Amino acid sequence: MPRTLHLALHPYGVGGPGQHGLWKDPRVAKNASIDIDYYIRQAQAAEHALFDALFIVDSQFINATYPAHYLNRLEPLTLLSAVATHTRHIGLVGTASSTYNSPFNLARRFASLDLISGGRAGWNVVTSFDTGTARNFGLDEHLDYATRYGRALEFVEVARGLWDSYEDDAFPADVARGVFLDPDKLHALDHVGEHFSVAGPLNVSRSPQGQPVIFQAGVSEEGRDLAARVAEGIYAPGGTLEQAQEYYADIKRRTAAYGRNPDHIKIFLHGGPVVAATDEAARRREREIFEEDNDFDRNLALLGRSFGAYDFSVHDLDAPFPDVAHLAEKGGRTGAAKLIERARAEKLTLRQVAESVNQFRRSPFVGDPRTVADTIEQWYDAGTLDGINLAFRTEEELNLFVDGVVPLLQKRGLFRTEYTADTLRGNLGLPVPANRHARERALAAG
Amino acid sequence: MPRTLHLALHPYGVGGPGQHGLWKDPRVAKNASIDIDYYIRQAQAAEHALFDALFIVDSQFINATYPAHYLNRLEPLTLLSAVATHTRHIGLVGTASSTYNSPFNLARRFASLDLISGGRAGWNVVTSFDTGTARNFGLDEHLDYATRYGRALEFVEVARGLWDSYEDDAFPADVARGVFLDPDKLHALDHVGEHFSVAGPLNVSRSPQGQPVIFQAGVSEEGRDLAARVAEGIYAPGGTLEQAQEYYADIKRRTAAYGRNPDHIKIFLHGGPVVAATDEAARRREREIFEEDNDFDRNLALLGRSFGAYDFSVHDLDAPFPDVAHLAEKGGRTGAAKLIERARAEKLTLRQVAESVNQFRRSPFVGDPRTVADTIEQWYDAGTLDGINLAFRTEEELNLFVDGVVPLLQKRGLFRTEYTADTLRGNLGLPVPANRHARERALAAG
Repeated sequence: MPRTLHLALHPYGVGGPGQHGLWKDPRVAKNASIDIDYYIRQAQAAEHALFDALFIVDSQFINATYPAHYLNRLEPLTLLSAVATHTRHIGLVGTASSTYNSPFNLARRFASLDLISGGRAGWNVVTSFDTGTARNFGLDEHLDYATRYGRALEFVEVARGLWDSYEDDAFPADVARGVFLDPDKLHALDHVGEHFSVAGPLNVSRSPQGQPVIFQAGVSEEGRDLAARVAEGIYAPGGTLEQAQEYYADIKRRTAAYGRNPDHIKIFLHGGPVVAATDEAARRREREIFEEDNDFDRNLALLGRSFGAYDFSVHDLDAPFPDVAHLAEKGGRTGAAKLIERARAEKLTLRQVAESVNQFRRSPFVGDPRTVADTIEQWYDAGTLDGINLAFRTEEELNLFVDGVVPLLQKRGLFRTEYTADTLRGNLGLPVPANRHARERALAAG
Repeated sequence: MPRTLHLALHPYGVGGPGQHGLWKDPRVAKNASIDIDYYIRQAQAAEHALFDALFIVDSQFINATYPAHYLNRLEPLTLLSAVATHTRHIGLVGTASSTYNSPFNLARRFASLDLISGGRAGWNVVTSFDTGTARNFGLDEHLDYATRYGRALEFVEVARGLWDSYEDDAFPADVARGVFLDPDKLHALDHVGEHFSVAGPLNVSRSPQGQPVIFQAGVSEEGRDLAARVAEGIYAPGGTLEQAQEYYADIKRRTAAYGRNPDHIKIFLHGGPVVAATDEAARRREREIFEEDNDFDRNLALLGRSFGAYDFSVHDLDAPFPDVAHLAEKGGRTGAAKLIERARAEKLTLRQVAESVNQFRRSPFVGDPRTVADTIEQWYDAGTLDGINLAFRTEEELNLFVDGVVPLLQKRGLFRTEYTADTLRGNLGLPVPANRHARERALAAG
């Protein structure tokens, strides 16, 4: 079986979690996160390097303690639409919440991006996790886990139904017969479910890739289940090689259990690689990045975020970790419950817990270009990933990876040497979903 | 006082109401309405001609009887974002419904477009009028008039509040002091109103024009009131010169009554001009367009649309107009009540009413370039318009206007000979709204 590693680029802008100090780097423009030219340059560099996709993450709630990139950034689909006309091959994956959107609007926006880009749109489905976001949408408390995931599943099903409103040959545009639309090939949805009622049809036709690609980032039990049911790409949590193997095998097994081909869900590991001229320089750079970002007050605020933006500074830092079990549900992250459990088991103080939540994520891919290529190959062969979602602190580091690591991966037959498709599905090796109505018609015709 | 006519371009794509046959024209690409390159070309041609704005209308409900352009088109903001990076001066006005969006999401998307375009975004606020759209958003019946307009007003107020989340100098990005954001210049909104609760702040900063420009198309009493309160641009209904004068004076008077400067609301008349080499050729062309579009079955379906997509074909065509007063509220258009009134007063049959609803709108601007320029000047001087929203059936007709009519308007000092601003506000002569928090701070400081 051919080895086909997939690469995506996740632009950091002026710095998200784990890179709070990035904006101070003289090589980083202070307005990167709101500068469309920065994103166009990033996308073009990634396309030049034959990457599969540009991946735009998102969040909707901020306060003054948030990382610089979160404070002031462009909405993902507005951003990607502008990038679309300046690129030709690279996929455009945008994050949008299934909790705070309506299926008709969002399906329409992704369908529009898919047409504008000629079949390169992807949707990273998130359910949003904090009370702060809920309060921007008229809710006092965040929806609970089960409701959010049930809603996400139904949302994706409705969106996919809407994306099939038109069969591929719905528009003969035949002047001689005076027929623009063949009305038999336009289908209402008439969906009535637990969370949504949507009549349809959608007023947008399908793109060359049939439907946008669904991405997800399932970590919890509910998240993994949702991913296995509907995702075609996953933004995986990472961790140690063993943890990544467990996650990879679990997702592929769950996907197969739903009757799906496990090759049709591509698992991307987060990798903020640190590449330098020598292994030692890379390790030194990694330590620098960690230290730069390690700020006690910020870590305390970050800790609060997992508990629904709770203010831990009202507690004694050196007393045992306070009883905040009732807040864990609000944060809605599995992480909150785990933190409480660990604090109790290890008898940690609030200070000790806060010190442990620095969001710097150690990348497995640290070293000179050869070391990084070796490690990627090792992780790929160990069954931990189908792709890597790469984040670089500066354009210089991106270029170091592209010029140093990519050619080695190509030489080993692990990465493409040219684009073989113009759609995101094509490059990811995902099938084009047949229009459901055309399929039914074909079945009925025998 | 200098005369400053404003011009906007409203692309027809493959043909909306009143141009159902447009897609058959060999000069119109069959995929124009979903081809981003078509829109980029239109925007660039309009910018070359120094137009103020590109105006993108919208709707969200379709069935197979709808005009070709409605059936399959791009979502306005996704479209405009792609156009933004291929233009530098022209304003980008997109239509979005205040009934079927949430303020946080929509404010964020327009703010993003405003940053991407360097201060050229405008929002045409519509409340959406049909039951069909409601059924795409989980509602069985459309919200009534008063609720929709109350919601629209509050929606715009919330959006403007969110757009002021950051003061203009909120981001010193001062490396020496380690200060990216000045937290005193970030403001939550904490809005709690009849229709919305939105905490804020928005995670996007202000653009060079401060806030996107608000457009509206107020026709009814509620619509005119909303326009006078919040709109900075109006898409006016047109009609005879006397009707347009009445409307213009009424809107300016209402705006002044709210304590606003009536010059800060720009009234755009719809004008699908018909320009040809001679007056006679233009009138002939106008008749052709009308005849081409006059189809009885379609007119009957259009009639139904004003009554909540009611199917009139179940009635005897030659009997008196049926009693559908109970449906007029559903359609939610003042037009429905007027149609019933006229049918009763003039004792019309269903057939006669249906024949009267052809959506072709006679433009006042028909003739050779000189006649069209004369008529525009006459209407401008008569106090009917500040600008015209121009729609052309083909790129050829657009060029005829640009090359024939625009130079005459310029010669008469009615239209600009170069752009004097890079923002939509700048070109429209609208003030940049000061950030409300900065204003309060200045007032407090005396």
